Amino acid sequence: MSIAEVHSYRAQAARGTLVVIGGREDRSEELLILREVASRLHGGRLAIVTVASTQGDELYAEYQGAFGKLGVEVVQLPIDRREDALDPAKCKVLEGAGGVFFTGGDQIRITSELGGTPACDMIYDLHQRGGVIAGTSAGASVLGQVMPVSGAQDDSARVRDQLRLVPGLGFVRDVIIDQHFAQRGRLGRIIGAVAQNPLILGIGIDEDTALVFDEYNAFTVVGSGAATVADGRGVTYTNINEADSDHIMSVFDLRLHVLSAGDVFDMRARRPALSRQHVSEPDEPQKSAASGREGPSNGARAS
Amino acid sequence: MSIAEVHSYRAQAARGTLVVIGGREDRSEELLILREVASRLHGGRLAIVTVASTQGDELYAEYQGAFGKLGVEVVQLPIDRREDALDPAKCKVLEGAGGVFFTGGDQIRITSELGGTPACDMIYDLHQRGGVIAGTSAGASVLGQVMPVSGAQDDSARVRDQLRLVPGLGFVRDVIIDQHFAQRGRLGRIIGAVAQNPLILGIGIDEDTALVFDEYNAFTVVGSGAATVADGRGVTYTNINEADSDHIMSVFDLRLHVLSAGDVFDMRARRPALSRQHVSEPDEPQKSAASGREGPSNGARAS
Repeated sequence: MSIAEVHSYRAQAARGTLVVIGGREDRSEELLILREVASRLHGGRLAIVTVASTQGDELYAEYQGAFGKLGVEVVQLPIDRREDALDPAKCKVLEGAGGVFFTGGDQIRITSELGGTPACDMIYDLHQRGGVIAGTSAGASVLGQVMPVSGAQDDSARVRDQLRLVPGLGFVRDVIIDQHFAQRGRLGRIIGAVAQNPLILGIGIDEDTALVFDEYNAFTVVGSGAATVADGRGVTYTNINEADSDHIMSVFDLRLHVLSAGDVFDMRARRPALSRQHVSEPDEPQKSAASGREGPSNGARAS
Repeated sequence: MSIAEVHSYRAQAARGTLVVIGGREDRSEELLILREVASRLHGGRLAIVTVASTQGDELYAEYQGAFGKLGVEVVQLPIDRREDALDPAKCKVLEGAGGVFFTGGDQIRITSELGGTPACDMIYDLHQRGGVIAGTSAGASVLGQVMPVSGAQDDSARVRDQLRLVPGLGFVRDVIIDQHFAQRGRLGRIIGAVAQNPLILGIGIDEDTALVFDEYNAFTVVGSGAATVADGRGVTYTNINEADSDHIMSVFDLRLHVLSAGDVFDMRARRPALSRQHVSEPDEPQKSAASGREGPSNGARAS
């Protein structure tokens, strides 16, 4: 599937939901975030994709235990290399699946081994048909349109440390998703990505925190941390395009939202809101535009 | 000096400059930032204030060596406890001083041992008369109007971890200064402080990076990292005032500027600019207001 096809695919309203997790979600106690995944699985098994990790079997066993407590039957997608992803027999587990869960590891392993394969097409198709797609850590970043690839120093504002972006699987359009956000001090990396093309919205998700996307392209924050949204549309100046990548980044007038559990973000209007009911529906474009100008849609609580 | 007096003191145009350093400035090679301090010392010795540190003598020796290379004569302020700061004999070194340098350590040691003492008044007076005041790390934070006091987790967005603020020495009005900013992932802490009262501008300074304030209350960034300015005036919603401090912070519509070496920030207009010549002078209020609305003052390079 080419990038253009991914766009046209995404332009259709996918019926499935997405659960995008910032890493290190609780897998043994309350299972708050995994419960969100389970509740969106309307029949069928949950296919665990461990290709990102070199400890795939151990990770699979851990999720098998956690989802087992929630009454969810899981199956490991037996794909470790690209030749597996091209083998119809190995993709068969996706046929009866009701959802897919991408584990952590190295995000570029997911896209390089899975991107553009029949296995990947089956996952898009599953999402179209209403399946839930979830991912944590590296598995979260691949859900965006582009994804950051680890530089040596996450915290750096040096331009050359910002530039490693790779196309993601595109389940969420016009977005770059970073994870372990507060824990690894990744503000510089997300701002650098946004400054390169402010069309792209940057979202940094803390550990044990998730974005639950509904079918209208709005997400609700769940979990014990925050989600930070960096909107560069209003940026008035950046030096990120200068040839010398050894300089330090300048970005003026970035808009930042820090969202906590229960907060909602409307991706189409690019506006935060205090609850789902204040997000515009697709057939209400004017309400959406208005909320974009006037701050959070819940006027009563806005200061 | 009471807080009200500090304000009225600051309302007078102090003739001296300020060099506010994010910690770990180079003390052995290029000495870029310490050179900025030295160049603003117009006669007299530089008094090194080591009260923040438990290794004051070692720190003093290090700065003595570094400033010695720059031809600057230093002297250690012999104040370790409040009773020293009340002793006119120990304050005598400030009489012939041309500037003061606050070392790193624990910022609350500086304010609790020095705040409101005759020694502190002499430092305000020195600044009034044109002396340079510099500080690094903890010594930088004390120069602001309020300062953050370390919580256990710098990176947390949990509200209870945000709330430890202590009044600083007030050399820079309406500002909270945080240091080791990128290196210690302190975005959450500065946003939390700003959300509590968006009158206060938040400034996070990376290591080996400094803000050089001129007498018109504009600063220029110097050094190898970035300075991040968080402006909360446009914030449309925050939950930071809710009683339960165990919740995670929400802040919508914060404005963020990432500034690198050579960038200028006009504190009165709260606007970044690309060079000093684009910052309004005190007798040009309209230019200042206009730059506040129209983005960076250098229209030619603004995107």
